[in-house]
Amino acid sequence: MTLVLGGARSGKSAHAEALIERSPGPWTYIATAQAFDDEMRERIALHRARRPAGWETIDAPNDLAGAVAALPPGRPALVDCLTLWLTNVMLAESDLSAEAAALEAACAAAPGPLVLVSNEVGLGIVPDNALARRFRDEAGRLNQRLAARADRVVMIVAGLPLTLKEETR
Amino acid sequence: MTLVLGGARSGKSAHAEALIERSPGPWTYIATAQAFDDEMRERIALHRARRPAGWETIDAPNDLAGAVAALPPGRPALVDCLTLWLTNVMLAESDLSAEAAALEAACAAAPGPLVLVSNEVGLGIVPDNALARRFRDEAGRLNQRLAARADRVVMIVAGLPLTLKEETR
Amino acid sequence: MTLVLGGARSGKSAHAEALIERSPGPWTYIATAQAFDDEMRERIALHRARRPAGWETIDAPNDLAGAVAALPPGRPALVDCLTLWLTNVMLAESDLSAEAAALEAACAAAPGPLVLVSNEVGLGIVPDNALARRFRDEAGRLNQRLAARADRVVMIVAGLPLTLKEETR
Repeated sequence: MTLVLGGARSGKSAHAEALIERSPGPWTYIATAQAFDDEMRERIALHRARRPAGWETIDAPNDLAGAVAALPPGRPALVDCLTLWLTNVMLAESDLSAEAAALEAACAAAPGPLVLVSNEVGLGIVPDNALARRFRDEAGRLNQRLAARADRVVMIVAGLPLTLKEETR
Repeated sequence: MTLVLGGARSGKSAHAEALIERSPGPWTYIATAQAFDDEMRERIALHRARRPAGWETIDAPNDLAGAVAALPPGRPALVDCLTLWLTNVMLAESDLSAEAAALEAACAAAPGPLVLVSNEVGLGIVPDNALARRFRDEAGRLNQRLAARADRVVMIVAGLPLTLKEETR
Repeated sequence: MTLVLGGARSGKSAHAEALIERSPGPWTYIATAQAFDDEMRERIALHRARRPAGWETIDAPNDLAGAVAALPPGRPALVDCLTLWLTNVMLAESDLSAEAAALEAACAAAPGPLVLVSNEVGLGIVPDNALARRFRDEAGRLNQRLAARADRVVMIVAGLPLTLKEETR
């Protein structure tokens, strides 16, 4: 299990795709994005257009743990991204703590190579509004939890990886 | 002297506590937070609840240099955090440059192991309002000054340390 | 060609100046800042005051590719910074994609050592307004493109360099 962190337009998705393609395909792309508006629809289309043949795409905006648990044995999978999933869970007013625990357990039990993409959002000034502050806190906590579980954590800056954790088994 | 940098919910306080507990206790926790509202009160209570026995807590929202200078000989201490102290100094309209110089001198002369926690806040988009921009500038300058003095500087991302400086004496 | 990334007040300009001064002078400073208001005028004056003798300053708020292409053979040059240039190009509503391609080509063909300074702006919470989001995306893309071309990429945090890429030729 690898966690790929990075800022906006840091190249984290492209890096994560390259990582998972080191395992033999076919690969599953678990997409968490929900298209609420044109800007979002455009971003999703751009991401899809980049993926070549050999990729199966599954949409899991809310039940991400279920999608990970349902992966076929040995199938390499990429989750893009945790931050959008967190947004969806918060908007749905689901029990975040239970959802995060279920996700963690599903990822730890994943039957094949798994790469998770997540945004780092806590390195700017404190946001003005309380919801953004809560989101920032939850995103930080989620990243910490999954980083603790992952075998490998990389942060992408300007397309370049910086290794934060590398466990050899 | 160690400087621990990190974003919101990066795990920097937990990392700093683990670092200082490598020195034999008792330890002093120098808290700079001021509880202006319920959100802040809750954050402070959470931080306090995490600290086990063997910790003495001192509140120094403004006179941080004085609190560091008054530490007993050899006492390991943790300052959490510089960014809240900077907020307090700016709100009090004190002479920031003199206060920062006094803090630097006190930290350099600290009689025991000292770990300083500070937020990195300059990696987002330029803030809309002038006060936030000024704060961001001052926080960056303060981090640079203390990083130059420190023997060790680490940045925490998702709970994982990234060493920026390590001086062996 | 070296790309120096960093947040606000991270010490990236001072680091970039120290880097380019390793090559024998005189040095050219290519400034992209435009003084729209007093705050900006003050920042520019501070930056200029820090540069010692032996530096020639060229203003290139828009035609940065032209300024790089016009450097005398072997002349070491520092571009500070790409992020302000991007702001200027977006405000001028120029063809950003063509401008970025011209800049990339000019940098790759630069006749002497070249150090580019750029801001990392994508590590905070998603900005409220669409223009800031677009700027953040374009800044990330530009940093990725130039990082891919550069021989060396460093990120500056609290005045300390973190090497992201180092190519030995």
